[in-house]
Formats: sequence, structure tokens, C-alpha cells
Amino acid sequence: MAEDEFSNEPVREFCTSDHPGSVLQNLKELRDTGTLCDIALVVGSREIFAHRAVLAAGSRYFASIYRSDYTETHASRIELGSLDAGGVETVVQYIYTGVIKLTLGNVHVVLAAATHLDVLHLKDYCQQFLSDNISLGTCLSVWAVADLYDMDELKVQALKFILDNFTKIITMEDVLELPMERLLELLLKDELFVDKEEALFELVVKWTKYDVVNRRATFPKLLASLRIPLMELEYVINNMKSEPLLNEFPECLSLTDEAVSYLMRPQLLKDLPPAGLNTRPRLGTLKDVIVVCGG
Amino acid sequence: MAEDEFSNEPVREFCTSDHPGSVLQNLKELRDTGTLCDIALVVGSREIFAHRAVLAAGSRYFASIYRSDYTETHASRIELGSLDAGGVETVVQYIYTGVIKLTLGNVHVVLAAATHLDVLHLKDYCQQFLSDNISLGTCLSVWAVADLYDMDELKVQALKFILDNFTKIITMEDVLELPMERLLELLLKDELFVDKEEALFELVVKWTKYDVVNRRATFPKLLASLRIPLMELEYVINNMKSEPLLNEFPECLSLTDEAVSYLMRPQLLKDLPPAGLNTRPRLGTLKDVIVVCGG
Repeated sequence: MAEDEFSNEPVREFCTSDHPGSVLQNLKELRDTGTLCDIALVVGSREIFAHRAVLAAGSRYFASIYRSDYTETHASRIELGSLDAGGVETVVQYIYTGVIKLTLGNVHVVLAAATHLDVLHLKDYCQQFLSDNISLGTCLSVWAVADLYDMDELKVQALKFILDNFTKIITMEDVLELPMERLLELLLKDELFVDKEEALFELVVKWTKYDVVNRRATFPKLLASLRIPLMELEYVINNMKSEPLLNEFPECLSLTDEAVSYLMRPQLLKDLPPAGLNTRPRLGTLKDVIVVCGG
Repeated sequence: MAEDEFSNEPVREFCTSDHPGSVLQNLKELRDTGTLCDIALVVGSREIFAHRAVLAAGSRYFASIYRSDYTETHASRIELGSLDAGGVETVVQYIYTGVIKLTLGNVHVVLAAATHLDVLHLKDYCQQFLSDNISLGTCLSVWAVADLYDMDELKVQALKFILDNFTKIITMEDVLELPMERLLELLLKDELFVDKEEALFELVVKWTKYDVVNRRATFPKLLASLRIPLMELEYVINNMKSEPLLNEFPECLSLTDEAVSYLMRPQLLKDLPPAGLNTRPRLGTLKDVIVVCGG
């Protein structure tokens, strides 16, 4: 037994280790039964009821509202219009339990709600879950989400997966939904793994025609990111040059002509290509060469 | 990674082990800064502010109020007039932390508040603290408190300490504050440890005179609980019978006379005492006899 610092009176501190868990469990039961709820979070047509104090204790967004002298302090409703109701409910449940179940179906709306409401740990959990679930079906959306929420490590992971698996990704519908900037970022990478550069030209044409009205103007920029000198001369002459889109833009025609001239040079003169032509092999292709040499 | 029961979709549960502790800590900070407090507990002239939901999660008294349709649900003040403000504040702090510091100075008011507010564990902690601190200075109040709050085990402990140490307790001022029923309960015990039965007579006289107006009437009942045949004949004749209090009550005089007759009998005739006289030795005295015999 400890003695008080300034007297001989006995003092003892008792601590209930499971007390916080028990209080939170009881707060959850109060919420589940609608007892003492004093705030409605309005998301679309849905109202999510809770206790202001608990929200302020679990979310820095609410803490900041309620610590200020905002009129929200006394408001019985707070509009969270931009979020998804299911995502907000899942995050509020986490605040009342410390437990969250993530699926591919909810992780995006949870991440959005958790980021907006600024709830500790949840962004890390979403990042962990997305990182564990990068696949052909998810990699493009994970890459976009990682970029949106500044998750740098996840962004690197998703991008590496996309680059490594681009031969398969190129055949999927998802790739046609990519924004222009993101597609261009991929096409410019040395690490982009494809069997043949020709496949990238076909992707650029298909991607542009998927929404031709809005995308036509970006065709020249995308074409310029391709490495035409890595294609077969016959393909460039017979397939590329007959593509109507390409013929709409003089700069595209001129680039293709320049590549044809280059490809027709004798091998010895290919070391110094014209400035506008990227002749650097993609790393995926290089790897194949090394394997062949080593065999 | 677990798979969802009805699909192949990946599911993962994340759990923050220190989440409840962190939420409770934040709730405490909200209370410390007066943020979102929505109830004042009124104790005497003091107002103790808190959050209704937290009180309902930590105290079954508040849970019961707020789970009902009492008008208290919407009241911004609750009167707790019968309690001590310091005791209530300490209990409310425990609800917000799970930690309580007990001293001999606060344990009684904390116990009263914890019992009224029905807060889990606190009564056990008070019992444990009181049990660890039974001493000459505390034993009588611990015994009373244990009785008041139905702490049977503590009551047995305190009573045993009192009986074992009655030779010293008899000299303390505290003993004169005992209620009549409690003093009588002690005097009737075989286990009451005193050097001489005569000391108990002196205690009864002193106790009665401490508040003679209110206590005079109980003198005969207390005297009847004494074991006069265990006293010295000379003491009974010279000291007891000259006590004015005793002479006020014919039944006391008659009891004393009977004891004197008994004490004057030859040793051989002492085996069958009159029905009104308790001649059974106290266990403390018996123990001494055994020690002497064994020596």
C-alpha cells in the first residue's frame, strides 16, 4: 500500500483494466436503443443517430466542430451530403466499438468517410486492406484511390502491379475508363510490361474511340508517348498509317513518317535516332532479350 | 485473410485494442474543458458537470433514469442532495477513467456515492481498502459501515478485530459513540477479549453517562449482558453496588444481589448458577487459563 506524499495516511489506487471497454460497450448499447442520442448525421435521405460527445471523442472532425463556438454545437442535425450513408454508419460503428470489417464493397466509402471525419487508424486499415487486395480486378481503382488520398506507398504498389501485368490489363474493359493523365503516365514508363509495342497503339486507338467526342483531342499526345521505332515496319506502314484517327492530325502523320524512315535505315545507322523518336526499349522487352542471350 | 461466408469476396476485420481507452480519455478531456457537458449533478451548493451518455454508460443509476421515460431524461440538472459532493466528483472521475484513489479520508463518501449511483466494482474496492486498513483507529467505523452496506465479510473481519482488541478499544473515546445495539452485541459475545469483566461494567457506566439523558433507560439491559459472577466479590460489593446509576433501577440491584449470593457460595455449589446469571467465561479468559495449565 502506498503512503500519501505528505502524510502517513494510507492511499491506494484501484484501476479497472476493462473499464473503458465496458463503458464503450454500454455507450454502443445506448446508441443501439436510441437512448440519449442527441445528433443526427444527415447523409442523403438517411439519418444516422449518435451521441455528440462520443463522436467528438472518436473523430477529430467532430472534436473540432464541438470545441469551437460553431453554431453546430447546438444543432441537432449535421449534413454530411458528400459522403455515402453506409460508409458513415460503418465509421460511426467503429467509433463505438474499435472494430471495423472491410470488404472490397465498402472500403472506398469507408475510406472517404474516415478521411472526412478524421478518425484515427481507419485510413491505415483501408490502406492495408487495399494493399492486401491488389489484383487484376482492383489494381486500377486502388491506384486511383491511393492517389486521391495521398497514400504514397499504396500508390507505388498499385502502379508496380499495373506495369507488371499490363499485358493482361490491356484486354480489360476497366482500362478504357482510365483518365487521360493516368493512361499517359503509364505509357511513358520504361517499366511498362507488354509483349509488343504495337498493342499499346491499339490500346490508344480503342481508348480514344471509347469516348471519341471528348477524347479525340488528346490522341496526338498519347501517340507521341508511344515508342514507334520498337514496332515492326510492316505494322507501322500497313496498320498505323491506315488508322483514320491518325490521319486527322498532321503531327501524328509526320511522327509516323519519321519513324518509318528511321526503321528503314540500315542497322548501323540506327544509333542516332531523330530527337522526336523514343527508341528506348521497355524494361519488359529488355528482360526477354537477356533471357534469350543467357539461354 | 478471411473470406466472407457467402461469397469469395475478401473480408478483413480490423480491431484497435486501445480504442476504448482512447475514446474514454478524449471524453475525459471534453469534460475537463466543459465541452458538450449536458447535465449538472447538484450536490449541496456544488454543481458537477458531465455528459449524460457517459454517466448512463458508467452508472446503473443513471442508466435506469435515462432508459426510462422519466422527465429526468431532458432535465439539465439532477439533485443528489443526500450525497457528499467530493464523493460524487470522485465517482464521476472514476467513470471517466476507470481509476480511483481511496484514502481513509474519502472512502466513506465514495462508498456512499458509488452505492447510490450503482457503479460496478467501486463497492468492492472500498471494501478491499477498508479491509486492508482495519486498525484501532478505524475498526469501529469500518464495522458500522460494513453493516450499513451489507458487506458481510468485512463486517466479520472488523468485528473479529474489535473483539480481539477490546482491552485497548475500551480506553478510546470512539467507543463512547457506539449505538446501544452495537455495544450490546459486543457485550454479549463470548469472544470479547478483556483482562477483567470489571472493565466492562466501568465501560457501561461511562458509556451511559456520556449521554445520560438519552441513555439512562438502556442501562439495565446493558448491565444484564455482563457476566457479574466472573467479577471479584469485593469489587461487586464495594464498587458496583455504590454506583448511583445502578441504584436507580430495582432490577439492577436485584441482579447484583443475586450475583453476590452466588459468589459467596462455597466452590462446590457453584456448578448450578441461578437462571438469570451468566457464568460462562469469555474465551479470552479461557485462553489464559489454558496457557497457564500448559506452562
